[in-house]
Amino acid sequence: MNDVAYVNGEFTRIQDARVSILDRGFLFGDGVYEVAAVLDGKLIDYEAHLSRFERSLREVALRSPTPLADLCEIQRELIARNGLREGLVYLQITRGAAAAREFSFPKDASPTLVMFTQEKNILAAPAARTGIAVKTVRDIRWARRDIKSISLLAQVLAKQAAVAEGCQEAWMFDDDGMVTEGASSSSFIITKQGVIVTRPNDSSILPGCTRKAILALADGCNLSIDERAFSVEEALDAAEAFVASASTFVLPVVSIDGDPIGAGIPGDRTKRLRELYISFARVSAT
Amino acid sequence: MNDVAYVNGEFTRIQDARVSILDRGFLFGDGVYEVAAVLDGKLIDYEAHLSRFERSLREVALRSPTPLADLCEIQRELIARNGLREGLVYLQITRGAAAAREFSFPKDASPTLVMFTQEKNILAAPAARTGIAVKTVRDIRWARRDIKSISLLAQVLAKQAAVAEGCQEAWMFDDDGMVTEGASSSSFIITKQGVIVTRPNDSSILPGCTRKAILALADGCNLSIDERAFSVEEALDAAEAFVASASTFVLPVVSIDGDPIGAGIPGDRTKRLRELYISFARVSAT
Repeated sequence: MNDVAYVNGEFTRIQDARVSILDRGFLFGDGVYEVAAVLDGKLIDYEAHLSRFERSLREVALRSPTPLADLCEIQRELIARNGLREGLVYLQITRGAAAAREFSFPKDASPTLVMFTQEKNILAAPAARTGIAVKTVRDIRWARRDIKSISLLAQVLAKQAAVAEGCQEAWMFDDDGMVTEGASSSSFIITKQGVIVTRPNDSSILPGCTRKAILALADGCNLSIDERAFSVEEALDAAEAFVASASTFVLPVVSIDGDPIGAGIPGDRTKRLRELYISFARVSAT
Repeated sequence: MNDVAYVNGEFTRIQDARVSILDRGFLFGDGVYEVAAVLDGKLIDYEAHLSRFERSLREVALRSPTPLADLCEIQRELIARNGLREGLVYLQITRGAAAAREFSFPKDASPTLVMFTQEKNILAAPAARTGIAVKTVRDIRWARRDIKSISLLAQVLAKQAAVAEGCQEAWMFDDDGMVTEGASSSSFIITKQGVIVTRPNDSSILPGCTRKAILALADGCNLSIDERAFSVEEALDAAEAFVASASTFVLPVVSIDGDPIGAGIPGDRTKRLRELYISFARVSAT
């Protein structure tokens, strides 16, 4: 974690970055967030993240205490103060602290805005070479998974279940056996026919910014894409599989529930998509 | 809100009661809580709340930083310091603040324990005389509603939808049209045949402490009880309806979605159950 954070208009040391215990983010998970990657000290695919953040805020009737157009400058300032070259910038708005705890929206609270940065080795991540192991878990989340809310306990438990078994990501599946997405990433398979399959955007998944860029890049390279749900069984039978997120870009999946995907090593098309995304990221950097 | 709060072993002024922005309660909704009523400065039905809290902690693999047996004394001390006679004591444990934000459980974080109290007119609440209006909303929560977690955004949105239409509570219903419970209370109807109907405990509802006491009290008075799910339609056709929670005890429901229940005034059996519960509360006070 970098030393400087931002809380409600002030840059502050991370150890002094605190919020009231009455903040609705702390009492109700009543807030939304975004995570964007940083490469060479620059924000990656920023417009997509800002646009999704704006949508999340709107869907829960939250307003930013700072004009959204000003967030980019604050994030850049935070990156500069931390001297961050490669990693993440985290942004969260909650409904603030009211005098009384009531479930309904308070009339006496101002939203809380916080930001911090985290160093992370994204480009040279070992998992990009080795691939990751995935565990499947039942998707027990709420019905509005399209909102990037901080009420994340289901995702926390899913990820922990994966980590406890030596896996790096959980792929969640609904009662119908169809994969929704990863605990903190979008899920993709590449069929033996060479088709990239990923679930279409609706309320069952988060509309991934990295997912969106990858589909555009794949389309531009004449890789075939089929936006549809796939089952755990189909994933196990795929030629390749991968995950995508702002904080990891593209990572190959080499096994699901202990069964190897394809040859059990990162697939060639996945590696190519990762390279394409890295090139895009560098170009999109602002 | 009362002036004194408790944070990680210290009594502190509520305006100084703060947690790190890295606390997983604030970033992930990764915590559980309890609310118990206070009458005459004493805790109501405490054992039931402690037992449920212990279960919630276990279900999310969280440990209390303080022995659970000691919580009661701390809560009593907080009540005394605030001079609270009637209201609520709130208790929350989160997975604490780790150096890095990762979904899986951190190895370097200690759980955070916070408590505060809130004055509330429970016995003489106007709603006990007038009854409350309920709005029905789709239940969009996660599949583990039996855990009293702070990832509460779905309940916040449900309650707000009710309040926005001049109602005091939201009754949530699943896709099958069956009512689960209120946004912050258990739901009951009394049929025209005089049977108290409420949904049985399973993962679709929170096991209400007040609900449990009411069922025991009703049974002791030879009121018939049927623990089964009921539909919105059946609720609209009921003789009486009511909600129960630690912070409100029993409140009559006089309308659902604008349609009156029975005569549109608090029902006699509901009033009797409220009186029975108040008597029980006074006896259980510790």
